[in-house]
Amino acid sequence: MNAIILSIGNELTSGQTVDTNSAYLARRVAEFGIRPLAHWTVGDGRREIADALARASSSAEVVIVSGGLGPTADDQTRQAVAEALGCELELDERCLAGIEEFFRARGRVMGAANRIQAMAPRGAELLENKVGTAPGLYARIGDAAVFVVPGVPSEMEWMFEHQIAPRLSRNEGVIIHRTIHTFGAGESDVGTRILDLMQRTGPVLVGTTVAAGMVSIRIISRGKTSEQAQAQSEDVAGEVKRRLGELVVGEGAVSMAAATGELLRERRQTLATAESCTGGLLGQMITSAPGASDYYVGGVISYANRVKEQLLGVGAEAIASHGAVSEEVAAAMAQGARTLLASDWAISITGVAGPGGGSTEKPVGLVWMALAGPEGTKTSKTLWGGTREIIRLRASLNALNMLRLELRNQ
Amino acid sequence: MNAIILSIGNELTSGQTVDTNSAYLARRVAEFGIRPLAHWTVGDGRREIADALARASSSAEVVIVSGGLGPTADDQTRQAVAEALGCELELDERCLAGIEEFFRARGRVMGAANRIQAMAPRGAELLENKVGTAPGLYARIGDAAVFVVPGVPSEMEWMFEHQIAPRLSRNEGVIIHRTIHTFGAGESDVGTRILDLMQRTGPVLVGTTVAAGMVSIRIISRGKTSEQAQAQSEDVAGEVKRRLGELVVGEGAVSMAAATGELLRERRQTLATAESCTGGLLGQMITSAPGASDYYVGGVISYANRVKEQLLGVGAEAIASHGAVSEEVAAAMAQGARTLLASDWAISITGVAGPGGGSTEKPVGLVWMALAGPEGTKTSKTLWGGTREIIRLRASLNALNMLRLELRNQ
Repeated sequence: MNAIILSIGNELTSGQTVDTNSAYLARRVAEFGIRPLAHWTVGDGRREIADALARASSSAEVVIVSGGLGPTADDQTRQAVAEALGCELELDERCLAGIEEFFRARGRVMGAANRIQAMAPRGAELLENKVGTAPGLYARIGDAAVFVVPGVPSEMEWMFEHQIAPRLSRNEGVIIHRTIHTFGAGESDVGTRILDLMQRTGPVLVGTTVAAGMVSIRIISRGKTSEQAQAQSEDVAGEVKRRLGELVVGEGAVSMAAATGELLRERRQTLATAESCTGGLLGQMITSAPGASDYYVGGVISYANRVKEQLLGVGAEAIASHGAVSEEVAAAMAQGARTLLASDWAISITGVAGPGGGSTEKPVGLVWMALAGPEGTKTSKTLWGGTREIIRLRASLNALNMLRLELRNQ
Repeated sequence: MNAIILSIGNELTSGQTVDTNSAYLARRVAEFGIRPLAHWTVGDGRREIADALARASSSAEVVIVSGGLGPTADDQTRQAVAEALGCELELDERCLAGIEEFFRARGRVMGAANRIQAMAPRGAELLENKVGTAPGLYARIGDAAVFVVPGVPSEMEWMFEHQIAPRLSRNEGVIIHRTIHTFGAGESDVGTRILDLMQRTGPVLVGTTVAAGMVSIRIISRGKTSEQAQAQSEDVAGEVKRRLGELVVGEGAVSMAAATGELLRERRQTLATAESCTGGLLGQMITSAPGASDYYVGGVISYANRVKEQLLGVGAEAIASHGAVSEEVAAAMAQGARTLLASDWAISITGVAGPGGGSTEKPVGLVWMALAGPEGTKTSKTLWGGTREIIRLRASLNALNMLRLELRNQ
């Protein structure tokens, strides 16, 4: 079975926005044994969307369309589907009530423009969207199953998970995906350690991807039964984990923050943070895991030096003689946060995130981190390249990883 | 004149790699007055590339292809161009010498596999690549000018600049893009206010998109000269801004944080934060703008109630009688942060980000925010749906927007 992924929007064809939906959808349909044949991106014109729909549905068995379902005049995907099906749009009263309720639950009133979102071509099925106002569509055009979802990535992902995935056939056998996340080595290094597994052909395929600062190993296992696919997957995952040892952070949805949080929860220990250049990112990352209040007490964002001094008790002389980005200041920040917030552990980060503020001695990308705990304080230094955003992301991951390794190896 | 952008590679169709070349090429061709009609991505098969080439060159006057020019067996774009042209590949001795020289200059010896890179279909022109080993191609297929460049982004960009740009006619005029970001109203509300502008056809097109919690208005202006395109764009942008008033946050790369920061910088005022459910996201957002240290002092992440009490001076009785997510606690947090961190302004956020922790009285999505300033404290409440991530994002944007509006309307 083949799929064509169709993205709609002038902001995409003009290059103002980079299309990330297509890559996501391609990866997801592959999990169902469906091969993504091509991605097409067209603008907001009704005619061009209808043409693309007609061509796609005669070239592939599955067509997934994202974008153009908004309430404004430039959103024409709904109308284009009607055109491709050769029928009119009709109002769905139940769907309209649902959209009105969506607004009411948020203390707002639905505008007249949103009415169009409750309309569907006759013969198409409306797909409920619980995270936004634009329902999706499911229709058969010729022999193809055509799914239409909103272009907003979070809504598109929700719709895939809850509306498309259950409708995709699993007749081709069972495919099980699993992803093992690692931190602490580059993609080529990780790849070298599992090269023979990656080069194997057969029912279990192994690949690596890099995303958000972590290297992940994807294992795709195909079997006649769920048990068979599962057993094969376990086998290879076990081998990958053995080879990668402490680099392995977790699997699937388990982030660095969740993996570290779980170790704290098991030990009934608490954590505090003290951040300078990351400005809250470390705290945000820790609290992105639901239930973080079990172990995370809170933190201080000590962006200005006087906050480092007054709240965290970092000595003014330490800042004067070593600079705010130094091993001494990082250690004092972590110790100060641990005392102030009365936690078992505290992590600190101070660095030069750029683009300005670098020097020969302390270039952009230099980050000092410290971990203060029951048995003293450890420090660590990294020097990463990249944008301000990447430097801050890697610093936060690295700081959390210090704690993860400490807890793991205790 | 229209263009189709064609990207080649199994790593793209499978979704392992997000295609950023198409967006870059689309923006660049638009500068030459050429409208990017569509982007197509196909895999590494010779047949499918040749088919896409044939279809693209009968649909647009300009076709730009990236990818599939490497030296390995899975690189088939060169062969596909030959197939589309109906002629053989021939070795170009001068080009071969150039590739050999490329390796020699780097102290390496050219491998036999690279020989294919010096081959071009008869009738096509080889385009020299000074930053890599894969030369590009220029050919006319039917009435279309077809350019083929390597897929490596840095090589693709060099080739566009040095080989494609000089060959593209500037006769068709100039296209100027601009984006105006708004916050505080939904897409349908924004769309209704500028509906007539969005429905206009002609040299200036207006559309809306939603990304990262903000609604943005895109203005695409086409003129015979740069001056004309600019004047038309100014005109429409002025009208959009008049109609949307204080909803307008900024243009282009200006984020909510940068726009608010700029207002603080102008006034030489400082800001502190006190965060509960956002756990550092608000601080992270503020400090994502380079130079935030001009106005951002720092903050307290008061995740545990005892941190709200001990650091921010929130009364234990306020938490006991109103709950941690309440107007009273939000106000006390902001006032406490303003005093503790000695800033002109302080913003606080306390809410139920979910997925757990909601109740009938205080459902998931309920967020209280407060802004403490020289003239007192204001509070605000929102109730958004969505995931934990979206609730936290919107809460942070909303809190910053309170300050932006306060500074703007002073």
